[in-house]
Amino acid sequence: MPAAARYGDPAATLDVLNDVLRVQLAHRSVRRFGPRDVSDDELAALVAAAQSASTSSNLQVWSVIAVRDPARKARLATLAGNQEFIARAPLFLVWIADLSRVHRLAERAGTQVAAVDYLETTIVGFVDTALAAQNAAVAAESLGFGTVFVGAIRNRPAEVAAELGLPPHAVAAFGLAVGEPDPTEPAAVKPRLPREAVLHRERYDLSADVHIAAYDERLSAYNARFGLDGAWSDRALARLAGPESMAGRHRLREILERLGLPSR
Amino acid sequence: MPAAARYGDPAATLDVLNDVLRVQLAHRSVRRFGPRDVSDDELAALVAAAQSASTSSNLQVWSVIAVRDPARKARLATLAGNQEFIARAPLFLVWIADLSRVHRLAERAGTQVAAVDYLETTIVGFVDTALAAQNAAVAAESLGFGTVFVGAIRNRPAEVAAELGLPPHAVAAFGLAVGEPDPTEPAAVKPRLPREAVLHRERYDLSADVHIAAYDERLSAYNARFGLDGAWSDRALARLAGPESMAGRHRLREILERLGLPSR
Repeated sequence: MPAAARYGDPAATLDVLNDVLRVQLAHRSVRRFGPRDVSDDELAALVAAAQSASTSSNLQVWSVIAVRDPARKARLATLAGNQEFIARAPLFLVWIADLSRVHRLAERAGTQVAAVDYLETTIVGFVDTALAAQNAAVAAESLGFGTVFVGAIRNRPAEVAAELGLPPHAVAAFGLAVGEPDPTEPAAVKPRLPREAVLHRERYDLSADVHIAAYDERLSAYNARFGLDGAWSDRALARLAGPESMAGRHRLREILERLGLPSR
Repeated sequence: MPAAARYGDPAATLDVLNDVLRVQLAHRSVRRFGPRDVSDDELAALVAAAQSASTSSNLQVWSVIAVRDPARKARLATLAGNQEFIARAPLFLVWIADLSRVHRLAERAGTQVAAVDYLETTIVGFVDTALAAQNAAVAAESLGFGTVFVGAIRNRPAEVAAELGLPPHAVAAFGLAVGEPDPTEPAAVKPRLPREAVLHRERYDLSADVHIAAYDERLSAYNARFGLDGAWSDRALARLAGPESMAGRHRLREILERLGLPSR
């Protein structure tokens, strides 16, 4: 039944399934945590999983900061849109798009890494950080933990960089809260768009949008279950309406430039 | 021994390990493929895994195009830096940072999604695409396939968009070749930086760089095994030297703007 929950569609099935896919399909965001800690050995495993992800030209332009200090977690929770669950997670991983390491290499070698100044390299930083973090998230879930990504760490990137002592040419891409799922949390596997809405064959097919209407119904039903209003389309349009709906993140380009990632 | 191979260090161990971590740790790039095809049922499983990854505000701003047509794969191989293995993979997945779907929603609703114009939203597009694709890559490897990411699909984004019929506000983020690993390929698990070089506690620690020297030695030994020159630092500095080392990707910002992702 993992496909039925994933798509919010009792008729959805998968003919190919194994234990890895089962862990992936069962993903849900966890924001309420039980008492189990994340041990240092478990953290080492998450980081090894992250490092096993692909990385453009083996550049490895990311770092991760493991935050356990309650006061620091509370400050980060405030900076990330007052999301208090961050302070209650035993482990908060902040994933850093880190072009500072290659800048230090260049300084020591007396050379230049001018490619870092381009948008392409900012994007390589964010993409490679995401590939790594997704491996860590799946590894955490395979060990019985729950996770949730925190994009709101980009609401105030300069303050976050100061809190974490980031050097120039590095920025917090997102956070990942990790902890034992509290089974009393009112949440479930959130249905996604039908496969046919996102999978195209050979060329992009605009008619894939025809599947959105069924999804809007499924997500309305899911939202209603948890006391939320609205279909998927309504909520997506509200979220992307304009700069006023971006919690400060419309300034990201200007702030990245100040942090040493001009993204030209 | 998966940790020893991952770090190129016979002394590296992990005290926490399971079947999911074993699949992740065994990742290597595969560029030479055997005859086994990727079935439609297997493709459906990869896409379900991808859709199970986290997505910012459930926006799902990505699509994937499954390319099997030999002529199209050959044209994409040419556009992506003449990497012929793309044409020889049975399946080439092109992952699309797709803000076009929400644009079409807005058009139909007679409203605006002005947030799409900002760098933040471009980055959400690339990050969410990466989270999804990494799940698909791990799922593929769990099914016995090999994969390799192809960032060179960004060398000529406008031509790739035309080849794939992408609508405005969408761009190919990267490719993923999928197929049966040919065991005769001269390649192995590529060692990564020591964990201590990328994992920081509470705050960023500049002294983590002390671990780079040992890694340079390990990667020199690995490279020599496959007839390649140079340590990690040398190769990273060469790759990031400047716009001339970027295979055309220094123009990404200007091309994204033309594709309807102005990234302001």
